[in-house]
Amino acid sequence: MMELPLLTQNRDTVRYDREHGAVLALDRWRYPHETILVEYTDFDSLARALPQMLMHTGGPQPYIAGYALALAARQHRRWPTESQRATLVQAAEQLRQVCPMDYDMHTLLQMALQTADLALLRGEPAEPAIVALVDAEISRSDTVAEACGRHAASLLEDGACLLVHGFGGGAFNWMLHHAHVQQGKQLDVYATETRPSLQGTRLTTQQADQLGVRVTLITDNMPGLYFRRGTFTCYVAAAYRIACDGSTAGHIGTYQYAVMAARHGVPCYVLGYAGPDPLAAEGTNLIVWQGDPEAVLHFAGERTAAAGVTALYPTLDITPPDLITQIATERGTLEPEQLAAYQET
Amino acid sequence: MMELPLLTQNRDTVRYDREHGAVLALDRWRYPHETILVEYTDFDSLARALPQMLMHTGGPQPYIAGYALALAARQHRRWPTESQRATLVQAAEQLRQVCPMDYDMHTLLQMALQTADLALLRGEPAEPAIVALVDAEISRSDTVAEACGRHAASLLEDGACLLVHGFGGGAFNWMLHHAHVQQGKQLDVYATETRPSLQGTRLTTQQADQLGVRVTLITDNMPGLYFRRGTFTCYVAAAYRIACDGSTAGHIGTYQYAVMAARHGVPCYVLGYAGPDPLAAEGTNLIVWQGDPEAVLHFAGERTAAAGVTALYPTLDITPPDLITQIATERGTLEPEQLAAYQET
Repeated sequence: MMELPLLTQNRDTVRYDREHGAVLALDRWRYPHETILVEYTDFDSLARALPQMLMHTGGPQPYIAGYALALAARQHRRWPTESQRATLVQAAEQLRQVCPMDYDMHTLLQMALQTADLALLRGEPAEPAIVALVDAEISRSDTVAEACGRHAASLLEDGACLLVHGFGGGAFNWMLHHAHVQQGKQLDVYATETRPSLQGTRLTTQQADQLGVRVTLITDNMPGLYFRRGTFTCYVAAAYRIACDGSTAGHIGTYQYAVMAARHGVPCYVLGYAGPDPLAAEGTNLIVWQGDPEAVLHFAGERTAAAGVTALYPTLDITPPDLITQIATERGTLEPEQLAAYQET
Repeated sequence: MMELPLLTQNRDTVRYDREHGAVLALDRWRYPHETILVEYTDFDSLARALPQMLMHTGGPQPYIAGYALALAARQHRRWPTESQRATLVQAAEQLRQVCPMDYDMHTLLQMALQTADLALLRGEPAEPAIVALVDAEISRSDTVAEACGRHAASLLEDGACLLVHGFGGGAFNWMLHHAHVQQGKQLDVYATETRPSLQGTRLTTQQADQLGVRVTLITDNMPGLYFRRGTFTCYVAAAYRIACDGSTAGHIGTYQYAVMAARHGVPCYVLGYAGPDPLAAEGTNLIVWQGDPEAVLHFAGERTAAAGVTALYPTLDITPPDLITQIATERGTLEPEQLAAYQET
């Protein structure tokens, strides 16, 4: 069997070393040019590094934050129980503040705090309890990604030509693995470079290439031309969050390519992972947060804009359900209007 | 009067030094970070440098090529007349081959060859005849740009918020000059960075800023979000060539933003300079040429894409007339369907 690319499973890029008390996380900025697992043994330095790791939404940041909390628990394990609890609450708040809009991270931190509380109340150490929780969540996320990708593969026909924007994470890799490696479908992938973080340039193209799929890199202003020429047979977008009405928050740009797909009669498929968020009734409940505009003023670390120029960096946009053809989730593929009943499927 | 930004007039960025026989051309890759007029005194080295100067369509490359021909004439001015003519034909062909798809350049080179021929037949030197022709063409282009920009300014309302893609050249600067500086209209410009050559990042933003217009830089995948939010009151695109049916060849990406504008009821204005090309009846007569895909795989000499990844670089796309609201030309603003009668206006 062909080896899975490194970014297929979160368990391969984020780990906790229980013996030495260390978080190991792949440096996704240097990957794939270099494959380096960076080791963090100190809560504060990891908390400071975390915002810079936020290269793409839906990545492993929540798990890194969860393990960071385990590091904090380890560093204070000899303190009185009440002090440990107070320290953990404070540590979680510190992590939340460096990534104020990362919904998945906040959810995981909330779960980790409760787990730590229960352990401490039982007189057990908090660190291994938090690590076990995060391990289980990583394992669950990998299972969800595999199922989502497997269902998404069923949407791809032999000879399909996909426009892909952003990096769709594990589900994207599993989709190509099932469709191409397992089912032998010939696929072409056109990946946008996905400014400002260049996930397409560095991650999408390389992961697809490693799976033996033909891949072509284009800049973010080129999809329109190829839609007009009829090059694409489908558009595949990853969702960061999905509302119950089928509205989808995805990497900035997802919306404009969905509009192009609709105009040219090309189906739009969304990698929807665990399905809709029951707390978000509709698109207006999904929040578009602003990233650091310095990312737009620079390219690969070098300032490109003239002095005095200001920029904006909205990290996400919202695609309304009428532009989406199918949403692939861990439970199967659904039309947007079927999502409201997702919890009963 | 506020000083005009440097890129407003071609005469300020491309010159011929008659005394020493040298072409002086602004290095548009280093500008605005550095303002350097590079001097070329040798035909071959200029011909080799020319493809790298092709940063944006509609720029001053044709005039640089015309002056290059003057350099060739100077270098061979003591040869027999027939040898001079043969050399110039060969030099023009060499220039055409390094920029095989630059229609404006080919037209100018054809005119320059005829001018040289006439001078040589009269027993006069070819060099000053070619220089005089190119000088006149530069002057004409500056006049056309001023008139086009002045008419475009009439399309902008006080308080307008413009999405601008690519760099629209002199007409763009004149448009802002007339609307903002002369008529006192408050304007906001959102400029896409315009990968892969970053004309928006480096040129559009800086020229607008110098004219006192508020300007915000966004990446090429962000316009959709701001269209959806109702931020833009108009979309301004530059045309490289226009067909008689109103189809417009513009910088790659022009089409997808025109689709977004139409969806959101935002007017699309085209900077059309000298109007339609009488030889191009419709959009299918406009050619989209491929640039060097290395531009997409690299930034600032550094490879950003993973090893083994291939790319495409279509430099232009075609926007059909039904997506265009008004075309500003040197003779006034016209709807696309009025263009067929342009020669009679």
